[in-house]
Amino acid sequence: MIRMGIAGYGYWGPNLARAVSESGCARVEMIADQSDAACARAALRHPDARLTADIQAMIVDPAVDAIMIATPVATHFELARAALRAGKHVLVEKPMAETPARAAELVELADKKGLVLMVDHTFIYTGAVQEITRLIKKGDLGQVYYYDSTRVNLGLFQQDVNVIWDLAVHDLAILDHIFDAKPVAVSASSAACIKGSPANMAHMSIYYDDGAMAHLNVNWLAPVKIRQTLIGGSRRMIIYDDMQSSEKVKVYDRGAAPSDNPYEPRMSYRLGDMHAPALSSKEALLSEVQEFVRCIETGGVPITDGHSGLRVVELLDAATRSTRQRGFPVELQQERVAS
Amino acid sequence: MIRMGIAGYGYWGPNLARAVSESGCARVEMIADQSDAACARAALRHPDARLTADIQAMIVDPAVDAIMIATPVATHFELARAALRAGKHVLVEKPMAETPARAAELVELADKKGLVLMVDHTFIYTGAVQEITRLIKKGDLGQVYYYDSTRVNLGLFQQDVNVIWDLAVHDLAILDHIFDAKPVAVSASSAACIKGSPANMAHMSIYYDDGAMAHLNVNWLAPVKIRQTLIGGSRRMIIYDDMQSSEKVKVYDRGAAPSDNPYEPRMSYRLGDMHAPALSSKEALLSEVQEFVRCIETGGVPITDGHSGLRVVELLDAATRSTRQRGFPVELQQERVAS
Amino acid sequence: MIRMGIAGYGYWGPNLARAVSESGCARVEMIADQSDAACARAALRHPDARLTADIQAMIVDPAVDAIMIATPVATHFELARAALRAGKHVLVEKPMAETPARAAELVELADKKGLVLMVDHTFIYTGAVQEITRLIKKGDLGQVYYYDSTRVNLGLFQQDVNVIWDLAVHDLAILDHIFDAKPVAVSASSAACIKGSPANMAHMSIYYDDGAMAHLNVNWLAPVKIRQTLIGGSRRMIIYDDMQSSEKVKVYDRGAAPSDNPYEPRMSYRLGDMHAPALSSKEALLSEVQEFVRCIETGGVPITDGHSGLRVVELLDAATRSTRQRGFPVELQQERVAS
Amino acid sequence: MIRMGIAGYGYWGPNLARAVSESGCARVEMIADQSDAACARAALRHPDARLTADIQAMIVDPAVDAIMIATPVATHFELARAALRAGKHVLVEKPMAETPARAAELVELADKKGLVLMVDHTFIYTGAVQEITRLIKKGDLGQVYYYDSTRVNLGLFQQDVNVIWDLAVHDLAILDHIFDAKPVAVSASSAACIKGSPANMAHMSIYYDDGAMAHLNVNWLAPVKIRQTLIGGSRRMIIYDDMQSSEKVKVYDRGAAPSDNPYEPRMSYRLGDMHAPALSSKEALLSEVQEFVRCIETGGVPITDGHSGLRVVELLDAATRSTRQRGFPVELQQERVAS
Repeated sequence: MIRMGIAGYGYWGPNLARAVSESGCARVEMIADQSDAACARAALRHPDARLTADIQAMIVDPAVDAIMIATPVATHFELARAALRAGKHVLVEKPMAETPARAAELVELADKKGLVLMVDHTFIYTGAVQEITRLIKKGDLGQVYYYDSTRVNLGLFQQDVNVIWDLAVHDLAILDHIFDAKPVAVSASSAACIKGSPANMAHMSIYYDDGAMAHLNVNWLAPVKIRQTLIGGSRRMIIYDDMQSSEKVKVYDRGAAPSDNPYEPRMSYRLGDMHAPALSSKEALLSEVQEFVRCIETGGVPITDGHSGLRVVELLDAATRSTRQRGFPVELQQERVAS
Repeated sequence: MIRMGIAGYGYWGPNLARAVSESGCARVEMIADQSDAACARAALRHPDARLTADIQAMIVDPAVDAIMIATPVATHFELARAALRAGKHVLVEKPMAETPARAAELVELADKKGLVLMVDHTFIYTGAVQEITRLIKKGDLGQVYYYDSTRVNLGLFQQDVNVIWDLAVHDLAILDHIFDAKPVAVSASSAACIKGSPANMAHMSIYYDDGAMAHLNVNWLAPVKIRQTLIGGSRRMIIYDDMQSSEKVKVYDRGAAPSDNPYEPRMSYRLGDMHAPALSSKEALLSEVQEFVRCIETGGVPITDGHSGLRVVELLDAATRSTRQRGFPVELQQERVAS
Repeated sequence: MIRMGIAGYGYWGPNLARAVSESGCARVEMIADQSDAACARAALRHPDARLTADIQAMIVDPAVDAIMIATPVATHFELARAALRAGKHVLVEKPMAETPARAAELVELADKKGLVLMVDHTFIYTGAVQEITRLIKKGDLGQVYYYDSTRVNLGLFQQDVNVIWDLAVHDLAILDHIFDAKPVAVSASSAACIKGSPANMAHMSIYYDDGAMAHLNVNWLAPVKIRQTLIGGSRRMIIYDDMQSSEKVKVYDRGAAPSDNPYEPRMSYRLGDMHAPALSSKEALLSEVQEFVRCIETGGVPITDGHSGLRVVELLDAATRSTRQRGFPVELQQERVAS
Repeated sequence: MIRMGIAGYGYWGPNLARAVSESGCARVEMIADQSDAACARAALRHPDARLTADIQAMIVDPAVDAIMIATPVATHFELARAALRAGKHVLVEKPMAETPARAAELVELADKKGLVLMVDHTFIYTGAVQEITRLIKKGDLGQVYYYDSTRVNLGLFQQDVNVIWDLAVHDLAILDHIFDAKPVAVSASSAACIKGSPANMAHMSIYYDDGAMAHLNVNWLAPVKIRQTLIGGSRRMIIYDDMQSSEKVKVYDRGAAPSDNPYEPRMSYRLGDMHAPALSSKEALLSEVQEFVRCIETGGVPITDGHSGLRVVELLDAATRSTRQRGFPVELQQERVAS
């Protein structure tokens, strides 16, 4: 049983703690939060866990094997670095850090120490994204042309990060997972509609080295909640709609190709069947905790390791820089290790 | 009865001719098309119209008061110029011309000659856009923050223009009509997924001088047809979904504002009623023909006049230039006359 | 080329005439309608057809091979009988006649004369119903448990028939086509919400001899248009939604079965993939005209022959009788010939 | 603080217990369940509550003011009677009892003892049903013509009751609440598709004394979950779709009426605006517990009192009897007290 220490018991920490206690392979050893109220809530739910207001003390506690960090973004780096230095495996909330340099430092440190560093890109562990990955990897989509996502809703405005760091981060993690191609440039635009708040609306285009294109539309100020992604390929196309209670992933045998027949119109269109595969209903967070434990126990590399977290932060940073110049394209040099 | 000459009886010309004959205020005097088959079809539907393969001859025919041009984009300028020179009022298909310079020349010529020059931006005459315009103009939305449109489907790939000139043109015409603010810069990205075809997928952001933002997502290679626009304002927000058979326009009394109460969360959210106004079901094309005739008869300025057509072409041109540099922002200097 | 005579050029007659002229295997020889305005419209669309106000004259005209009857329901019987007596093949609008006795008389007459008698149950010729039929016949659904249909909208109130005869007739024709089982009883309820109008709302349950159940919900006074049918089988289930522009037929690999495992819950549920087959987009009416011509030329039996029309009328009649006694079950004795 | 005793801590009991502890006006004094596992779960969540395996002991415990019964249907009567005899107020799960006679006995006993007897018809306390009630009571719908509900999904098959008692009970409770008219007859049909299981599919029509009609379509064996109710009135119509995450209640200004103008078609149709009112998001169960406490403290009559529970059971019983005779109408004599 891996003994987990949960840093931060605010919005997300309770979910991590619950998933750990349901995982069957780890237990909640300690929970640390500066707020008394948070500790009281934690005590009620996890009577067997030790509680503390001192996160640093938990980090160095010898009875703790690994630390899960669910604190505000600005503290991710310091806490993760301290934990790694203390020889603890680390799972850190997304985004991994506020700058690529800090994310890179964590990756390097974990590599040097031989510790597991994982980023909580939860969507990667959903049945929907797993199925999309499977379809792409086995070639069902053919050449992937584009990924076009709309992720908008009303609220929750964040204080410390703009909407790109809050919402686009999910799609960037998914893209990092399902695309083999390398992003080479980003152009992004944004607007801060509410005076005094960070940008609440952004659009970003990502150019890939194989000609593919990704586009993300994120917004905290939309009248309704939309979670819809179109993925276009040469053989098939996908609509992934996370707001559907069933049939979240629809695979269309549709497409267009230059016509062979000189007597026909220049393009021919294919309008075949649609297929909505049954998806695993296993909770994503549970799978994620089990992946973390598996890597701790076997020395394996997590699906959403520090390298992927770093690549995502590089894109978040590049996009934010582009928005300051009205879409001026920012080039990227990402090293991709074969996964 | 205004006597119309229809130039081009291919895909759209028949719709114009039918609308003219149903208008009650104009009649189809002549139809010109180089194709014998097109003329034969025209003869069947409009037995009283004179037919010719010679568009130029129709343009100078003294029995024709006005010319409607529904030929390929590349020919719009030459035909419209010839018609204006011949003293004929002109309605031209969208986009008005292939370059801003040519569009500007037409505007100037029409002004000098005192003739009506109108562009067939049909959407402006739909019940949906009329209602949206009414809501914005009377202040129901408050300050308009953004216009965010998705206009994608499978096909029809065009040979002579890219997807921006084919699909984004509709949104640009709507924006020109409903926004009083002036566009100051455009950043756009595009991709040509099918080798040898023009760009079939594009995203463009438009920056306005009052801080508003517009974003258009257009694609000929999407698995399903989507026609959805979100319009965000400080007082209300709209979802305009043209694929709905009823309730195309939904007005949400929703929004966010900085909280007044220091003891509450920083932002407060408003989640009020939704209202879907009944829309006029009058055919847009019919309203458009009647507007054309009204302006010819009264010397009025059409809602979608040459100036609006020119402004739209300027944006199409700027967007296309931006796509060649991966979103590099292209600045705009548009003169807007109070409408 | 079969020479058709079209009786009635009001609401539906023009569709029949157009389908005939596009069929490639028949032509509109004559059109008969008592209204001058209808004849004028017919003349414009079918300049080669002979027009007459005298339907009886057309029926006996030697240049006419077959008669298509699109007149009010109350006249179906007289006209169809006259046509059959005159040796003409007959296609008659649904419902075939106002009473089972009259429908039976037509069937008998056609059989005796060796003429084709076909009922215009258009839905049977749609790509959607063809696909559903195919799936059921090849056993993909397993044992069919039920057919549950909702067919409601606002308007059009009929004057001469109630909503059962106007709307449920479509589902009864589909049921007659896709079910091999024999209906044994009907229970129906109805309400006439608008004083002075026929029943505008009805629900009917049909009991089949193999235990299957059908239920139809029809209404002229619903806020929106719904055309949705659920078909449940032991192996798969279908949702047929005719309001969808694509994916009208969805096949679900879902179901429930008593659990084998005594340690598990009593029932086990299967939640597999969903599949939406591509459907033929050929116009149903065109297929229907071609079926009529094929049977005339080969002596074949139409898919929607007089016998099926009679069975449908028997159910309409039984349902209406049941509504007069608040759902009192009316038993049926239908002869089914193997199809 | 009212001291509650929770009888049964299986599927629904935990929800009642949680709602009590969040109510602010009552507390969980005792929880009784024969299962050790259930008691262990209860102990974890409600450390301050006393636990027992002996429901009868809890019922007579002097420290308990009121009993909430969330045990299997077959035990409702015995437990509720015992509690009332012991002088305890009672909230009982729906359906209130297995027979009208037993439900009536409970009503009589509570009246005689002057105790609150309430039935857990949770839907009545939802924001959606409250808004629908408000709209009907203030006359916005005009004369209510019909209530037509579809409540189907895959699972959960019950062992002890058929689908009418499990699902239609919700609509019957809503109807009892929103209709002032008196039901006079019921016709229902049902089918048991899975051998050895109770009827999983049923349709029931209810005739009201003012001519209104209700129809319920319930099914445990449908491919998808549908919760859709159409309510038709002379002035407005409602669609209540409980599967929507927002806009659950849509009010349509649509209708039909005999035309006044003799030169127009016989019926005229009204196609006005649609309005989706914002609904209270307060949890229904919480409102329900507070209503129970309010009535205990003030001697008030609960919205969902024993009389309403009895009327619902009478309809459930009548419907089940009708299904045994294929829709044979069963007459009802319900006493309605002005509410």
